[in-house]
Amino acid sequence: MASLDSVLAKIDQNLDAAVARLFEFIKIPSVSTDPAFNNDCHRAAAWAAAELTSLGFEASVRETEGLPMVVGHAKAARPDVPHVLFYGHYDVQPADPLELWTTPPFEPRIVETLAGRQLVGRGTADDKGQLMTFVEACRAFRETGELPCHITILLEGEEETGSPSLPAFLAANKTELRADMALVCDTLMWDKSTPAITTMLRGMVLEEVVIHGPNRDLHSGMFGGPAINPIRVLAKIIAELHDDTGRITIPEFYDDVIELPNEIADQWHELRFDGAKFLGDVGLSVPAGEHGRSVLEMLWSRPTCEINGIVGGYTAKGSKTVLPAQASAKFSFRLVANQKPDEVAKNFRAFVIERLPADCHAEFISHGASGAIALPFTSEALNRTRRALQVEWGKEPVLAGCGGSIPIVGSFKKDLKMDTLMVGFSLEDDRIHSPNEKYEMSSFHKGARSWARILTALSQ
Amino acid sequence: MASLDSVLAKIDQNLDAAVARLFEFIKIPSVSTDPAFNNDCHRAAAWAAAELTSLGFEASVRETEGLPMVVGHAKAARPDVPHVLFYGHYDVQPADPLELWTTPPFEPRIVETLAGRQLVGRGTADDKGQLMTFVEACRAFRETGELPCHITILLEGEEETGSPSLPAFLAANKTELRADMALVCDTLMWDKSTPAITTMLRGMVLEEVVIHGPNRDLHSGMFGGPAINPIRVLAKIIAELHDDTGRITIPEFYDDVIELPNEIADQWHELRFDGAKFLGDVGLSVPAGEHGRSVLEMLWSRPTCEINGIVGGYTAKGSKTVLPAQASAKFSFRLVANQKPDEVAKNFRAFVIERLPADCHAEFISHGASGAIALPFTSEALNRTRRALQVEWGKEPVLAGCGGSIPIVGSFKKDLKMDTLMVGFSLEDDRIHSPNEKYEMSSFHKGARSWARILTALSQ
Repeated sequence: MASLDSVLAKIDQNLDAAVARLFEFIKIPSVSTDPAFNNDCHRAAAWAAAELTSLGFEASVRETEGLPMVVGHAKAARPDVPHVLFYGHYDVQPADPLELWTTPPFEPRIVETLAGRQLVGRGTADDKGQLMTFVEACRAFRETGELPCHITILLEGEEETGSPSLPAFLAANKTELRADMALVCDTLMWDKSTPAITTMLRGMVLEEVVIHGPNRDLHSGMFGGPAINPIRVLAKIIAELHDDTGRITIPEFYDDVIELPNEIADQWHELRFDGAKFLGDVGLSVPAGEHGRSVLEMLWSRPTCEINGIVGGYTAKGSKTVLPAQASAKFSFRLVANQKPDEVAKNFRAFVIERLPADCHAEFISHGASGAIALPFTSEALNRTRRALQVEWGKEPVLAGCGGSIPIVGSFKKDLKMDTLMVGFSLEDDRIHSPNEKYEMSSFHKGARSWARILTALSQ
Repeated sequence: MASLDSVLAKIDQNLDAAVARLFEFIKIPSVSTDPAFNNDCHRAAAWAAAELTSLGFEASVRETEGLPMVVGHAKAARPDVPHVLFYGHYDVQPADPLELWTTPPFEPRIVETLAGRQLVGRGTADDKGQLMTFVEACRAFRETGELPCHITILLEGEEETGSPSLPAFLAANKTELRADMALVCDTLMWDKSTPAITTMLRGMVLEEVVIHGPNRDLHSGMFGGPAINPIRVLAKIIAELHDDTGRITIPEFYDDVIELPNEIADQWHELRFDGAKFLGDVGLSVPAGEHGRSVLEMLWSRPTCEINGIVGGYTAKGSKTVLPAQASAKFSFRLVANQKPDEVAKNFRAFVIERLPADCHAEFISHGASGAIALPFTSEALNRTRRALQVEWGKEPVLAGCGGSIPIVGSFKKDLKMDTLMVGFSLEDDRIHSPNEKYEMSSFHKGARSWARILTALSQ
C-alpha cells in the first residue's frame, strides 16, 4: 500500500483534472423537483456510475419508482479494515430565479477572488462538489495503490425533494448496503479554515396546503365583500402560526423538544458565533426566532416553521380585480431530536382545519418527513477523524449541529443500524439553493486530502 | 326618419350577422394588462374604428401614452336633438387560468342551454358584447334612416388596468368629447328578464406591496429560525387588515363612508335579493363582509379590501426549502361615495409600514385609483330611459348600485361636467374576469333593441 504522503501528492497533482471532471458533472442540470429535468437526472446518474466504474468500483445505476440510485462497491487490499458506506446526492436545487445569476447556473466556472479561487455553478457545493472530494480521494488511492477501507458509494437523485424512493431502496438492499459506518459529506465547515464534524441534524416535515373557497375565480367588484377570499384565510392561518415571542403555536409542538445539555451549550457559547455578522451578511439585523435563544441555538437545536412559498390569484404584471377560488402555501418544519414528524404533520393539519371558515376547505399534500438526529459521538472513529482533520487543517474541528436536514442519516440509523460520520467542506456563504452557488477551491482540494487522511486513519 | 318599429325589425333581422361581427371582435385577444398582447390591443382598436367608419361615423384611432382610444362622431338628421357620448372599452381581462376554459377563450362560440342561447368567450360580456349592443342599434338606425341623436362613441383600451391614459385624453379633448350626457353600458341587469339602471358605483384603489427581507433567497435549513421570512410578514399584515367582525382596520377608513338613506335601503330591501343563492351559486354560504350588513349592502354600498394576488418563494411543483428574499401581494379597495382614494392609499401604506419588522421594507406600486360615484338621478333622461326599458322588457327597471368600478363615470362628472346614464345587459353569472365568460343571446339581442328605444326616447 502506498504511503499517505504519495496519495496526498497525487491529489495535489490531479487538481486541475478533478475540477474539469466536476464541471462535466455540473453541466448536467439534474434538478430533481421539476419533471422537465427528469432526463438530465438520469444522465447525471449514468455519469456518476461510469466515473465509479473507471475507478475500479463495481458500479451501476439502480432504478427506483422515482429517480435512480447509483451504487458502487470496491474492496481494500487488506480484508481486516472497516467497511464504510459513503453517501452523496447527484440531484440539485432548481436554479430559479435565473435572472439573478451572473453567469448561467449550469455553465460552471472558476472565479478568482481576493480570498482565493471559487467554483461557481448550481451544485458546486450542494452536493456535486462535496461528493467529488470523496471520489477524488478514492482516485488518488487507486492511482498510487489500493483503497485503505472497503468502500460502498451510494448516490441518490431525490435528496432535494425529500428522498421519497430512498426508504424502499434501503429496505430492499439492506444486506448489500450495510457497512460498519456511514460517511456523509453534505455538511459545513465551521469557517473557511476550520473543519467541522456534524453530530446533530434537524429533521423536516414538508407540507403543502391549498385553501379552496368559491367554486371559481370571482370578480372582486361583483363579489368583493360577501365572498370569502382564500388568500385572506391562508394569510390568517400563517399569521397565527407564530406568537409574538417567535414561538410556534401549534398544540404539542414543543412537547418532545429537549433542552440543550449544559456541556453542549457551553461548547457552542465558546465558539463565539457572530450572530450579528451571520444575519448582517444576508441584510438582516434582528433574530426572528424564539426570544431568549441565541442565533446558533435557533439554527442548530430549535425547531422552526417556515413558509417556503405562497401563491394565489393574479401574480403577473399589472392588476386584475380577481377574488381567487384558491390559494396555497408550502410549509417546512425543521425538527429537533425526539420530535415525531408524523405528530407534527398531524397537529399542523388540525391547526389549519380548526381555522377554516365555513365555506373553505383545505387540501393537504405531503412532500416528505424525516426525524431529527443527534449522535452521542464518543467512538474511536470520531476520535480518529478529529485527529485526521486536525492534521490536514492545523485546527481542532468543531463538533457542530446543523440547521438543515439530511434524511439519509436518520434512515441509516433506523433501517441499517449504522451511525454516520458527517464531514463536509461547504461554507455558510456558499449560496446553496440560491443564485450564484459556489464552492471554495480550498474546500474542494483540501476536502479530498481530508478524506484521504480520514480513510487512512479509519483503516489503521 | 324611419319608425322605431322598422328599426327594431332591422335589429331582429341583423342578429346572425351581428353575432358574427362580435365574434370577429372577440377573436382579437386584446388583454391590456399584459404587454405581450399590446399588438392585439392595437388591432382591436383598428377593428372598432373601421366598424364605426362603415356606419358613417367620422371615426379614428387616437394614440395615447398607453393603449389608443377610438373616437367616432355622427350627427342626427334633426339638429335639435340631444348629443350623447357613448363609452365602452375594447380591452379584456387576462384569460388565465387557461386550463379551466372548456374551449379556448378567444375562439367564441354559441352554446345552446335549457335557458336559451349564450355567447361564450373572453369579452363576450365585459365589454365587447355590451358595447356592440349599442353599435348594432346605431347600425339599425343607419340601415333604416338616420340616427335619432347626435352620437359620439369613445372606446378605450385600458379599462381593465385602471385607465391610466384616460384623464389626460379627456383633458386634451374636452371640447370634442363634451355632450349633453354620457351613456355607459358596462353594467348589469337585475336578472335575465329585468333591466336595471345603475345609479351608484363603487370606486377603486389598486395597490401592490412588495415586502423585502433578506438580501437574497436563503436555505430554510441554514437560516430558518433567525432569519425573518417576508411571507410571514406579509401574511400578518393581510391578517390584520380585517377584524373579527369583517370590518377593515385601517385608521380613518370608514370616516367618509355615508350610511345608506332609508328610502334607498327600503327599495333594496323590497328587491328581496337572495343573498344565499348569490353566494350558493359560487359555492359559498356565509357572507364574509361586515357583520350586520345584507349581502346587497356589502356589494353596493360598503367599501372592501381584497387581496387579488399573492406570491413569494417557490410555487412550482414539489418542494424547495427556500426562505425567500421577498413576497408581494396585490390589493384592491372598493370605495363608496365620499371616500377619498388618495387618503385610502396613504392610510393603507402607513398601515403596512407600521407593521414592518426592523429588517423588512415595503415597496409600493400604485395600479390606479378612482372615487366612487352616486347619481341623484331624477332627470327627464332617466325617466325616459325607465319607460323605454319598461316597454322593451315588460318590467320596471331596477335602480341599482354596482359593486364594480367604472372610473370613466367619475371622470365624466369631474372633468366633462356630464352625468352618466348607466344601462347594461350583463348578468351576475356571466363569469366576467373568470374562465368561460359568457353573454346571454337575449342580452345581446334585446340590449340592441333597448338602445334603439332609449335613443328614440331621448330624442323626442
